[in-house]
Amino acid sequence: QDISVEDEVKVDTLFNPEQDGEGLIQKSLPREWTDRIKVSGYIQARYNGLFETNPDLSVPQMDKNWGADKGISLRRVRLKVSGWLLDNVYVYMQADFAGSPTLRDAYMDLYFDHHKSTWVRVGQSKVPFGFENMQSSQFRLPLDRSDPINSALPNERDLMAVLYHTPQKVRKVYEYMKENNLKHSGNYGTFALGAFNGQGINQPDKNANLHMVARASWPFQFANNQIMELSVHGYAGQYVLPNASQDLNTEVDNGNGEMTLVSATGHNFKDARVGGTFVWYPQPIGFQAEYNYGVGPEYDPASELVKEKNLHGGYAMLYGKIHYKNHTFFPFSRYLYYHGGKKFEADARAYRVNDLEIGVEWQPNPAYEIVAMYVIADRSTADHGTREFVDQAGNLLRIQMQINF
Amino acid sequence: QDISVEDEVKVDTLFNPEQDGEGLIQKSLPREWTDRIKVSGYIQARYNGLFETNPDLSVPQMDKNWGADKGISLRRVRLKVSGWLLDNVYVYMQADFAGSPTLRDAYMDLYFDHHKSTWVRVGQSKVPFGFENMQSSQFRLPLDRSDPINSALPNERDLMAVLYHTPQKVRKVYEYMKENNLKHSGNYGTFALGAFNGQGINQPDKNANLHMVARASWPFQFANNQIMELSVHGYAGQYVLPNASQDLNTEVDNGNGEMTLVSATGHNFKDARVGGTFVWYPQPIGFQAEYNYGVGPEYDPASELVKEKNLHGGYAMLYGKIHYKNHTFFPFSRYLYYHGGKKFEADARAYRVNDLEIGVEWQPNPAYEIVAMYVIADRSTADHGTREFVDQAGNLLRIQMQINF
Amino acid sequence: QDISVEDEVKVDTLFNPEQDGEGLIQKSLPREWTDRIKVSGYIQARYNGLFETNPDLSVPQMDKNWGADKGISLRRVRLKVSGWLLDNVYVYMQADFAGSPTLRDAYMDLYFDHHKSTWVRVGQSKVPFGFENMQSSQFRLPLDRSDPINSALPNERDLMAVLYHTPQKVRKVYEYMKENNLKHSGNYGTFALGAFNGQGINQPDKNANLHMVARASWPFQFANNQIMELSVHGYAGQYVLPNASQDLNTEVDNGNGEMTLVSATGHNFKDARVGGTFVWYPQPIGFQAEYNYGVGPEYDPASELVKEKNLHGGYAMLYGKIHYKNHTFFPFSRYLYYHGGKKFEADARAYRVNDLEIGVEWQPNPAYEIVAMYVIADRSTADHGTREFVDQAGNLLRIQMQINF
Repeated sequence: QDISVEDEVKVDTLFNPEQDGEGLIQKSLPREWTDRIKVSGYIQARYNGLFETNPDLSVPQMDKNWGADKGISLRRVRLKVSGWLLDNVYVYMQADFAGSPTLRDAYMDLYFDHHKSTWVRVGQSKVPFGFENMQSSQFRLPLDRSDPINSALPNERDLMAVLYHTPQKVRKVYEYMKENNLKHSGNYGTFALGAFNGQGINQPDKNANLHMVARASWPFQFANNQIMELSVHGYAGQYVLPNASQDLNTEVDNGNGEMTLVSATGHNFKDARVGGTFVWYPQPIGFQAEYNYGVGPEYDPASELVKEKNLHGGYAMLYGKIHYKNHTFFPFSRYLYYHGGKKFEADARAYRVNDLEIGVEWQPNPAYEIVAMYVIADRSTADHGTREFVDQAGNLLRIQMQINF
Repeated sequence: QDISVEDEVKVDTLFNPEQDGEGLIQKSLPREWTDRIKVSGYIQARYNGLFETNPDLSVPQMDKNWGADKGISLRRVRLKVSGWLLDNVYVYMQADFAGSPTLRDAYMDLYFDHHKSTWVRVGQSKVPFGFENMQSSQFRLPLDRSDPINSALPNERDLMAVLYHTPQKVRKVYEYMKENNLKHSGNYGTFALGAFNGQGINQPDKNANLHMVARASWPFQFANNQIMELSVHGYAGQYVLPNASQDLNTEVDNGNGEMTLVSATGHNFKDARVGGTFVWYPQPIGFQAEYNYGVGPEYDPASELVKEKNLHGGYAMLYGKIHYKNHTFFPFSRYLYYHGGKKFEADARAYRVNDLEIGVEWQPNPAYEIVAMYVIADRSTADHGTREFVDQAGNLLRIQMQINF
Repeated sequence: QDISVEDEVKVDTLFNPEQDGEGLIQKSLPREWTDRIKVSGYIQARYNGLFETNPDLSVPQMDKNWGADKGISLRRVRLKVSGWLLDNVYVYMQADFAGSPTLRDAYMDLYFDHHKSTWVRVGQSKVPFGFENMQSSQFRLPLDRSDPINSALPNERDLMAVLYHTPQKVRKVYEYMKENNLKHSGNYGTFALGAFNGQGINQPDKNANLHMVARASWPFQFANNQIMELSVHGYAGQYVLPNASQDLNTEVDNGNGEMTLVSATGHNFKDARVGGTFVWYPQPIGFQAEYNYGVGPEYDPASELVKEKNLHGGYAMLYGKIHYKNHTFFPFSRYLYYHGGKKFEADARAYRVNDLEIGVEWQPNPAYEIVAMYVIADRSTADHGTREFVDQAGNLLRIQMQINF
């Protein structure tokens, strides 16, 4: 999302269009359709089968094509249609065509002023929680988002209405980061406050309860141009399992302080997290870390029930940015840790994850890039099928080619 | 579909391209692809959960997200690719990305003359029956089409070949209505005659029988510029139920005047309607009414069979158009009534519908609009599951934000 | 895919961008998005029900709407986004919206020199095997590809990495054929060598084995401008049946020279073919023939097993190109023959096919075309449901209208 900062614009509102009298609130759409919207996208092709030590290790949340069968795969085939329709109206639509086509984003932004600093977004879009979730996969260094952060919001998105505010001086920092290819997350508001369904994309809500979300993220730019971004964020709501075994139960307080069993299917589980992010942008050395803590449904092998349990986890990544003869290289190493359930998987499957990744992204030019990443993974999971924790550990080299259009 | 009227063009035909010798029949496509086609679309986001008095009242034909679960939803996410490839060749393609992606339109128009008055349309497109069905959801005032008219053709479209004719003087009235934002239905021919499969969009025909359709719709413009449009239309064919309970039967005459039972699945049911439309366009007060009468499959709870039964229904809408400080408002109130089956629902479910809607559409600018609509609904249905009529009545406030790009 | 030949460019490589110092390797994307990519496509609408002598004859590989139910259908609704992002980077994405939307192509081409003669393609694209499979359905004369060639690679495509080379002088012949509307197959490399998953489009690989493919195809242009193209091509790999009856077995050597039965589901079947093509381009009389021979899974009704069996088949087509008053006509007649299994159909269904087609394509202008084709078909099939060969023979007239945008 490309926003040019205009230094001197007058404050105005949707509700008093004549106030400035200077045509600052544009009333007519751009004449040519190519000035209203643009078509763009990117494609990611992968090979996950090199030097694989354990073919039984699969990581469906990260990549459905990581597992026993070695083959070439398309992880993302994205097509976007987006544009400024008016000074204060922006539209964004994105579909993914990998596997079977699905809608990712479809939202409208309505700005309340001509600084483009305050706006409301309605539709399907990313929920403002975390840094990694906000950053496009087009720009992220590791091939996939981390379990601890992404397990909060699979596909990162939901149906929502969110109020955003980004002060002008922060937008200048964002633009600096964009111009300098610093792998920023994009403008999802310095401050955000909103409501979303909570059940994920492309499906109706399952209860009469909306999730609430809030986020504050400030990039401090120092005199030497180094930038440090700090973020806190949290959400809370009630979640209905999309996929629970028929005989699977959970326990609820019957009002007398006693616990009774009810079916896990259709039950409203507490689903809440708070988190924090620290980013030091790579000029030329960068460091990025996120952590979150919360409560959510998780399969408990001891009782063979789904319970509301605490979850926690995070990641830390050291990375760099190197120029060599018109090419840009980003070496990186990420360690990630997660202890909790994945609400959107079968039976709110329990996870214990410890992964280390070492890789490099090579950008020969603005049109495409190649990532090679070696993964040392150790993952234990438990659900109502396994009844106990099953551990899979293994290493492999993963390769991705990406083209941006 | 945007057609500019050219006052002086020579009649010509596809079959004698050299006749005029003046290059009036263009033989080369426009050089730039952006001059051949344009990309456009619109998005509708809704919230159906305000002041809901009866969560058991759902209306799947109107909106699958109207019902027990309160949440934000996307009703339509439309992307269109369309354009004039030549003087006399037009292409239109539209997909919907809400929920799971589906094709809506894919057709070609071949014009037989350079007045652009007579053309044949082949492909998937709207069947010319009724006014409301023709009008795009982008422009309609009430959030959803009415049961009495839309039950004729769910999704309004089918696979078809239709001949259209619109005299030049009528196209000038259409253009006047478009320029004045009068909520016209678009140019689907002043006269139309064609054939279509009859089983709806994106699926093969189910019998060796094509439906026939005809329509005439004339807008009378008076000296004071007020416009009254009158329309008559009808279709007839044989319909196969897409979704009938396994043990559900219908009765047929065995040739001796006796009725015998046969399975409803695969049976060819009579499916025919005639209808009429009256529209007085809002300058500034408008009135719109439609009625149709016909025969079609309907579940009969008394006999527990599907039978060919009479159906009838219509709606009447009073509305206005108000300007206030660059904003346009369309207040409206619609009453709708339907008595008949819905052939495309399970067991050709029987319906008795009485709804009253009161709402307003607010257009702050050409890019987006907001509709709020209060609904007082009373709906009885019967199918092979319920075996008798079940009544659901209730009120709620529905809200929609729409962006046009 | 549109490649303009530049006669004088310097050789350069991706790895020494500064070598020529002349800016021949472009580093910045075109400024306007409409110069980077273009949107295009085509639509095919059909009617398969005229003069049908046998409603039980259906040909699902060719057209799912050829069969008992007579109706209008959409065979292809294609939307493409493609473009040169840089001098040496090309992207291509194509989706089909007929029935339910699916991805067809999503690939990136990286060229190693500025003659655009050598490139690697990664992603989902056509596997370089045969002429008919390479040629777009937008340009092919008969309505559908032939069983003998297309049974090698249903949907023609796979997930792949292929190295292509086309000498400059061959590209000039390709351009001549394009300018003269000679129904060429497009530039899929004069020489091609690559690897692909082998299980078809939009699904993960099913084994740890990649298929290998190679192709050489040279167009000889004589002094009188007549062109003859000769091609040889082959592929080999292991294939897992996507759709086998649960109780269906195959036999394997147990190592002692004895055959034992194992389940056909999940078994790796040999899948290999070699083929050849001869094309004499229509100036004004053309002739096109292909033949291929190989081994693959095929249901054997005698033993009620799936076995690795030899397969063979081909087609020969005589056609012409006629101009009449700005219209172009291509009359054609094709005979096709196939003896073998179809690995992608249920139980690797056995086929014995003898079809004769007589038709004509009429191009009134560059935007659309009409094909009428009379088919005299004789087809025997056997699978684990029928247990023996069932023969269906019949004739019908098929009609198609196509629009190109």
